[in-house]
This record gives sequence, C-alpha cells and structure tokens, in this order.
Amino acid sequence: MDAAEVADANRRYYEAFEAADLDAMSAVWERSERATCTHPGWSTLRGWSQVQASFFSLFQQPLRMQFLLTRQDVHVEGDVAWLSLDENLLGEQGGVTVATFNLFVRDHWSGQWSMVCHHGSAVHASVT
Amino acid sequence: MDAAEVADANRRYYEAFEAADLDAMSAVWERSERATCTHPGWSTLRGWSQVQASFFSLFQQPLRMQFLLTRQDVHVEGDVAWLSLDENLLGEQGGVTVATFNLFVRDHWSGQWSMVCHHGSAVHASVT
Repeated sequence: MDAAEVADANRRYYEAFEAADLDAMSAVWERSERATCTHPGWSTLRGWSQVQASFFSLFQQPLRMQFLLTRQDVHVEGDVAWLSLDENLLGEQGGVTVATFNLFVRDHWSGQWSMVCHHGSAVHASVT
Repeated sequence: MDAAEVADANRRYYEAFEAADLDAMSAVWERSERATCTHPGWSTLRGWSQVQASFFSLFQQPLRMQFLLTRQDVHVEGDVAWLSLDENLLGEQGGVTVATFNLFVRDHWSGQWSMVCHHGSAVHASVT
C-alpha cells in the first residue's frame, strides 16, 4: 500500500510536468531546504527556491514534455521511498531516455509522501 | 552522529573507487536486488550482480580515478540517508564535474550503513 501511494505521488510529478502546472508541481514537492533536483546535464539545484525557479523557467518554454515511464521500481524503507525509472521523452526532440531516481519522504503528521530529490541523466550508451 | 557515520561510509566508496579495489567496493554496498547504480551516461544498473560487474569492468581500465568531493550534504531520515555532492574528477580527462546522489540504508541488525543507490551525471551547464 505504501508503494502504491508513492507511485501515485510520482505520477502526480509527471502529470504536473506534462501540464506545465507550477502549482501542481509545488504540491508534489517538499518545499524545504533539503529539496534537491538534478535536471539532465545540470548542476544539482538545492533548496526549494532553486528547484521551483527551475520549473518556473522550464514551464515558460513552448515545448510541452511528454513522458513514457518504463522500468519503474519502488522501494519503501520506513518513511522514505525511492523510485528508479526511465523517462522516455516523446516529442520533437525524438527518443531520449533519461535514467531517473526520485526520492520521497512521508510527512509524520499528514502521512503525505513528498518528493525531496529528483535526479535525471540522459542515457548515452546502453550497457545492460 | 548518524550523519558522520554516513559520511564515513560514503568516503569508503570513493576510497575503494580510487584504489580500484573490488573487495572494498563490495563491502560498501548492500549486495541485494534493490541496489542500483547509474554511472554518467549509462542506463541504470539494477541488482548487485549488475552493479558489481560494472565496477569489475571499470577497475580493469588502466586509468585510475581521483575524486575531489565538494558541496557534500548529508540527510538522515530514520534508517535511510542520502548525500548530494559533486565529484570533481581529476586526471587525464581534465576537469569534469559529476553531480551525484548516493543513498544509504542502515542494516537493522548490524547498524552498518550500506550504499543502495548511486547516481552520477556529468554537468554540462552551470545554471546555479
């Protein structure tokens, strides 16, 4: 059941991204200093204000992203959960695969899972 | 104190890498199916056998890696801990920075922190 809740929170991240909806994206994240986000090829952004600013900037772009998620694994350990998955980016840029790691932490009071870390990196070579 | 233990486990990862010591590297990791490792530009390797094979292969190369670690932050939540850091790779390949996320889980019985996930990606643009 925990894993299903985490998968649901993860799904909301991609729905917010595809809709370029900053409010929905903000609702997905833990808006704290420990939030980190590493977009493909970027330095790691640290703290919610940097992370939020990056999504604000990305959502200004006319290109809408579409994600096909594959190889998704969820692991839960206490109040922390992490997902490994592949983001297959559709659209004008063609078939890019982004190896992704997403970390969620469950709030003690609300029981809600919030994203704390996102790390994506383009796959340049398949070695598996 | 937990954060110091995690930082110590993280340090052993880089010492094992610099020494190209597969036994020491194996001792750092949780040798389980949930172990994942994303080397820069690679697909995510899943399960200890794939992760181990990648280090075996990397350690066959004559080039020895040297890491200068910067921007290291440690966060602990129960029996899970994660580090955000930059690996600054020295050596013949010049100044490459790898944005890195490392996840550790504490074993309930031994109390030992073991690496469960490693994700590194080369930084192509500085946006911070």
